[in-house]
Amino acid sequence: MSHERDLDYDAWLQETPLRGLACPPPLRALVVFGSPSEPVLETAAAEWTRAVQAAFGERPVRLQPSLDAYPDAPFVAMGLVPELPLGLRELAAKALEAAVSDDAYAIVSTGGNIAVVAHTPAGLLYGAFHLIRRLRLGQPLHEPCVSSPHNALRMLDHWDNADGTIERGYAGQSLFYRGGQIDFDERRVADYARLLASIGINAIAINNVNVHPIETRFLTEAYLPGIARLADIFRRYGIRLFLSINFASPVDLGDLPTADPLDARVEAWWRAAADRIYRHIPDFGGFLVKADSEFRPGPFTYGRDHKDGANMLARALAPHGGLVIWRAFVYNCLMDWRDRRSDRARAAYDHFVPLDGLFLDNVLIQIKHGPIDFQVREPVSPLFGGLRSTNVMLELQITQEYTGQQRDVCYLAPMWKQVLDFDTHARGEGSTVAEIARGALFGRPHGGMAGVANVGDSPNWTGHSLAQANLYAFGRLAWDPSLDPAEIAREWAQLTYGDEADVVRTVEAILMASWPAYEAYTAPLGVGFMVNPGHHDGPNPEGYEYSKWGTYHYADWRGIGVDRTMATGTGFTGQYHEPVRSLYEHLETCPDELLLFFHHVPYTHALHSGKTVIQHIYDTHFDGVEAVAWMIEAWRRLAGRIDPVRFERVLARLLDQYDRAVEWRDVINTYFYRKCGIPDDRGRLIYP
Amino acid sequence: MSHERDLDYDAWLQETPLRGLACPPPLRALVVFGSPSEPVLETAAAEWTRAVQAAFGERPVRLQPSLDAYPDAPFVAMGLVPELPLGLRELAAKALEAAVSDDAYAIVSTGGNIAVVAHTPAGLLYGAFHLIRRLRLGQPLHEPCVSSPHNALRMLDHWDNADGTIERGYAGQSLFYRGGQIDFDERRVADYARLLASIGINAIAINNVNVHPIETRFLTEAYLPGIARLADIFRRYGIRLFLSINFASPVDLGDLPTADPLDARVEAWWRAAADRIYRHIPDFGGFLVKADSEFRPGPFTYGRDHKDGANMLARALAPHGGLVIWRAFVYNCLMDWRDRRSDRARAAYDHFVPLDGLFLDNVLIQIKHGPIDFQVREPVSPLFGGLRSTNVMLELQITQEYTGQQRDVCYLAPMWKQVLDFDTHARGEGSTVAEIARGALFGRPHGGMAGVANVGDSPNWTGHSLAQANLYAFGRLAWDPSLDPAEIAREWAQLTYGDEADVVRTVEAILMASWPAYEAYTAPLGVGFMVNPGHHDGPNPEGYEYSKWGTYHYADWRGIGVDRTMATGTGFTGQYHEPVRSLYEHLETCPDELLLFFHHVPYTHALHSGKTVIQHIYDTHFDGVEAVAWMIEAWRRLAGRIDPVRFERVLARLLDQYDRAVEWRDVINTYFYRKCGIPDDRGRLIYP
Repeated sequence: MSHERDLDYDAWLQETPLRGLACPPPLRALVVFGSPSEPVLETAAAEWTRAVQAAFGERPVRLQPSLDAYPDAPFVAMGLVPELPLGLRELAAKALEAAVSDDAYAIVSTGGNIAVVAHTPAGLLYGAFHLIRRLRLGQPLHEPCVSSPHNALRMLDHWDNADGTIERGYAGQSLFYRGGQIDFDERRVADYARLLASIGINAIAINNVNVHPIETRFLTEAYLPGIARLADIFRRYGIRLFLSINFASPVDLGDLPTADPLDARVEAWWRAAADRIYRHIPDFGGFLVKADSEFRPGPFTYGRDHKDGANMLARALAPHGGLVIWRAFVYNCLMDWRDRRSDRARAAYDHFVPLDGLFLDNVLIQIKHGPIDFQVREPVSPLFGGLRSTNVMLELQITQEYTGQQRDVCYLAPMWKQVLDFDTHARGEGSTVAEIARGALFGRPHGGMAGVANVGDSPNWTGHSLAQANLYAFGRLAWDPSLDPAEIAREWAQLTYGDEADVVRTVEAILMASWPAYEAYTAPLGVGFMVNPGHHDGPNPEGYEYSKWGTYHYADWRGIGVDRTMATGTGFTGQYHEPVRSLYEHLETCPDELLLFFHHVPYTHALHSGKTVIQHIYDTHFDGVEAVAWMIEAWRRLAGRIDPVRFERVLARLLDQYDRAVEWRDVINTYFYRKCGIPDDRGRLIYP
Repeated sequence: MSHERDLDYDAWLQETPLRGLACPPPLRALVVFGSPSEPVLETAAAEWTRAVQAAFGERPVRLQPSLDAYPDAPFVAMGLVPELPLGLRELAAKALEAAVSDDAYAIVSTGGNIAVVAHTPAGLLYGAFHLIRRLRLGQPLHEPCVSSPHNALRMLDHWDNADGTIERGYAGQSLFYRGGQIDFDERRVADYARLLASIGINAIAINNVNVHPIETRFLTEAYLPGIARLADIFRRYGIRLFLSINFASPVDLGDLPTADPLDARVEAWWRAAADRIYRHIPDFGGFLVKADSEFRPGPFTYGRDHKDGANMLARALAPHGGLVIWRAFVYNCLMDWRDRRSDRARAAYDHFVPLDGLFLDNVLIQIKHGPIDFQVREPVSPLFGGLRSTNVMLELQITQEYTGQQRDVCYLAPMWKQVLDFDTHARGEGSTVAEIARGALFGRPHGGMAGVANVGDSPNWTGHSLAQANLYAFGRLAWDPSLDPAEIAREWAQLTYGDEADVVRTVEAILMASWPAYEAYTAPLGVGFMVNPGHHDGPNPEGYEYSKWGTYHYADWRGIGVDRTMATGTGFTGQYHEPVRSLYEHLETCPDELLLFFHHVPYTHALHSGKTVIQHIYDTHFDGVEAVAWMIEAWRRLAGRIDPVRFERVLARLLDQYDRAVEWRDVINTYFYRKCGIPDDRGRLIYP
């Protein structure tokens, strides 16, 4: 097996020949309208050429563009609107009329030819990958369409450290660093950039938001040339590079006695740093900042607030067109578990809503989807509905920190879709997170989505092969949140494993079953953090119960849950707009799956489902394990229809997942049984 | 304060002048009988000289020894028996008659002179330090005495890693290593050796029993010269150097495909390694081995057992007089919490008793004092009573892994004393651990005590100044287990802080109160491991409850504890001899403090004390905090009577300890209240 080609490396850009298909005539020729020295345009052309050659074994002939005569033979054209021949130009301009984004593309068809058109090289690149997707999915190539990304920023956040490790990474070491140095395989990084571009990613933060001493020096001449080399690679794929920065850099680098954002020396220091970066990377994206969070330095040290800190950095970047992405993940991480009125869930809203309207226009506040921290089930952060005059960005976690660490399959798109579709009612019905994050709801100039990357240098990028689907889905949803997660799963399965219907259906079914399964065998009813401290994997029902991290469930012999109501609890529900506020406030209307997030109830409380809380816990934990057993069975039926390397790799993970699910089931069931002494009403084995 | 001399550095060998005392005449002269080129003899003379000079500002005159004439003036003599003038020789020989150990010394007094006599230079060194102790304690210097160490091996185990870290170390970085190299401050190591010699330590293992890749190479020419330099320093203080070794060294160093102890190539490899070591260190002590324990390699990999592994190494060392110290800390660390019949406490006995009598004579089995792992309260390991034809050694943990990590004061001598005095009844009454560990009970050729060191490169050696008392007490008890821990505490306090009675009494009282206090506010009634996973500090009542480490308490809504009885439990009690076995087996006779170690009982079970289990838990946790409050008060009354550096340092730790004790109290009380719902019968605040 070791000599066999690892098809997982190509992920959703497989290069196997398309079986039994002859090359359609237009694909035999390619004509590009635009400056041939424009690298992204050339990338688009090269990708298309490569895809056609892989599919049919034939390399398209590159025809010379001409403004007055079409070639005789049918062809595929790629062109920037102003560079197109007149007739096509009008057609293209019309097709792109409604598309506001520079990244938009259209596919138009004229006389048997296919043209991908866009206003920018990046748009053409996305159009080319769209056409490649159609090709691999067997969809009609000629069908006219126009596509404009929903989000201007479609970003990946890498939590990679200069020492080569990746915080919360489960797929090997960093693609960018080794032993404290910028040290990478150019080919591999380019292949990565290509995967990202193919799903519409256009921004990447290349280092951990927890910025350690070495990464603090990324802003210096010692590291910038290496970082610029990375930027060069990503640029060819239309991806702008961002850096996470250490707010205390002026002090930590030994230049100033203070990092006070209102100190003129500090402002000048950051201006000089920005100038320096842009000398190396003219299209540098900007800074990603975790400040005053989990012991990271920030403006609080100097009696300043987030606005002071973010705006100071924003002023340094503004002349170059750079952005400050400031994380809202700010909370007291020295909480007192004794104080049931204190509530970490409230923190982001409490910190940032008072500052609404005070941030400069090139600042975005990046908000985690839930108010706690990427748990398998949380309500949507009320901060999305709270900030009206501030750019925001939605932060999702593709890496499976709390959702199985890429040992368990857990396809997250359905969860993300719930977040995107969540109606905050901030401006009445239809005020979805998707509309807020893009900036449209409140007419903000910037917006977008960021996902914490789940890749490393493992041969298949993501450790668990099926975790590639999460990266794929993130990109697709960032481009178009109206997509159906099941449809994305199907698409991914077909691109990855080929078009055998049974394979596609099975993979889709496994993916779609996986998040509900993970939720079922782990944390019940919106309770989170029943995990081992530190690494966050595996069950430990009270691992965080008395910690300083603000993650409690208050289980006792009678009941469990956090009372976050306005009436008797922490008042967190008050951070939502009506009618969401009342929905969560009242036990009668609170959705079952979030019950324990919002309410403390006895184990005998009856859910809307009719079951008691305790019976729900037992049932879901037995069901979750059964779901994994079913996945294994379903996957095994694909033996022989997926190449053995990829088949066995997934099977091994699924078998491991089964053992892990059993452990979760038994620990959680025993934990609750030991708490309340109520037996399972179906008499299944719960260890005493 | 930073310019003030740090008196903690001198620990119990303070060099302040003795107030108001004139130098007694014999102390003004010193005569040494023995070869002046014998380094340990010179160390003894130098230490005595230094002590006299420090105490009185006068350096004793060194007189030339003569076999036929005493000097005219009174003097102190130090001499090896055969080198003494005839009269004195006879006196010395008679005094030492009953002393079997080479390390024994006697103090004899003739005509106003004081003579320290011994058979060996090391004996003289211990005698010199005894005289120094008398001097500092204000005890009569002339009083004749003889002292022979109870244990032949009085050893410190350092868990230092080559990278400079110390596993379970709470006092800075290693004194021996930095950045993967043998890299030390000669002066500092010599000062350390001196402290150890002054309390009778004669052996030291200088690297962690978990031997990582770098330390594996300690056996090679790359590292042996550096290690030899360390050995040279310790040798001057009568201390032999040991190395912890990696059982898989022949494989890990790339020399052989196997480490099978019965493979002739492996045996030859270790023989060559031993020969190489002894070329560098002629008095090398031997190997300390953690094998087949917590994922360390060992003979099990090759289908062999501990005897095969240990004896193979023993054969390699035997020609040089080296020892193999093989740890009995072997258990399954992938246990299943569901299986209440499996019991980690049984493991050492189950592994080693079947091998009794099969180990070579230069092998010792080093046994942790309790069957689990250095908890604040455990019964004594039954393995001490189980091995009759095998050399054993008692392993204590001076470093406070589970007893406050040198942030809390916890004077461990009272606990150790209970262990040493514990009567196994292995050969009827009087079969104490102290008699077994020294080898006497079963007439074994080797025996001793090892303590896991609690020192690092912090200015005061141990982080918490009062933790120096643990190191001191370990040495004193290893020399003489009949000593009273309170007496040792008093002695240490006076040597360290001077002879003001109030200071001495207070320090003694704080030390003596500290272990009971720590037990009170942490783990109740013999339950252990209610700590945070990994670092083992701070409360986490179920942190290890569902882990693979075999450390459970099975608390549910009704009760708590591990049933280790023969009648209904794991049968662990059957590993003890009668009458201990029955004492622990029966609820009626089991001592309260070990109740939950041996029995699972309801919270309402009445203890011998008359309290219920739950009320005992509440009471001890409130009491424990009160005890710390008392310590702070008591210490504060010493303000002005201890130098400010040392006073404030301890005060800061005590104040920190108070907060920690409160945290323990509240977490444990709340945990149990949430389990059972039984209120405190005194109505104190227990957070719900």
